[in-house]
Amino acid sequence: MQKVNLNDKLSLFSDHWHPRIVGELNGQHVKLAKLKGEFIWHKHDDEDEMFFVISGQLKMVMRDETVVINPNEFYVVPKGVEHKPIAEEEVSVMLIEPASIKHTGDEKHELTKEKLEWI
Amino acid sequence: MQKVNLNDKLSLFSDHWHPRIVGELNGQHVKLAKLKGEFIWHKHDDEDEMFFVISGQLKMVMRDETVVINPNEFYVVPKGVEHKPIAEEEVSVMLIEPASIKHTGDEKHELTKEKLEWI
Repeated sequence: MQKVNLNDKLSLFSDHWHPRIVGELNGQHVKLAKLKGEFIWHKHDDEDEMFFVISGQLKMVMRDETVVINPNEFYVVPKGVEHKPIAEEEVSVMLIEPASIKHTGDEKHELTKEKLEWI
Repeated sequence: MQKVNLNDKLSLFSDHWHPRIVGELNGQHVKLAKLKGEFIWHKHDDEDEMFFVISGQLKMVMRDETVVINPNEFYVVPKGVEHKPIAEEEVSVMLIEPASIKHTGDEKHELTKEKLEWI
């Protein structure tokens, strides 16, 4: 593989809540996404999900707490924990999660992406 | 777990080639390290290793190519590939690799850390 420059890859798309795959290691995918607005409540029964914020401020709302994640910070949503990401202004994130993960867990929504592309 | 601020964690140590664990997901550890100078040639037979550069410039020398990794870039050294990281000036990196990985693979060296701590 080639090295990956986050800003170069982020310049290739502009739509929100549509992660792209940019790397892979040990069965995990590294993804980039732009987020704006409110996503839906969902959980992943078997997968931990790492959110690393590149720019903007991400609020990760969970049933018993909300974590505010700023640039150069990351948070791992543990498997089984319901969460709802909110981006009041546009946020760019790097995600690391198993390649097998489903975008919105068992929830189906118009925002749900069934298959993600590599860029 | 708490969210992790990379700069806060990096301020807690100053020694080189001594990664600290700052997160965990799906059997992978997220680590931070400061690098300066030349490390040793080694490989990990069963583990891919992701190097995300936070500051500085990292040269990843492999037998058939050298990849220069700048801030906001990452590179995955595939399992089995011999590599030798070189940091002419100090580099801060975030590493993602299986929790089971050995620091210098099967090589033993005075730089080898047998057990890494969480910070």
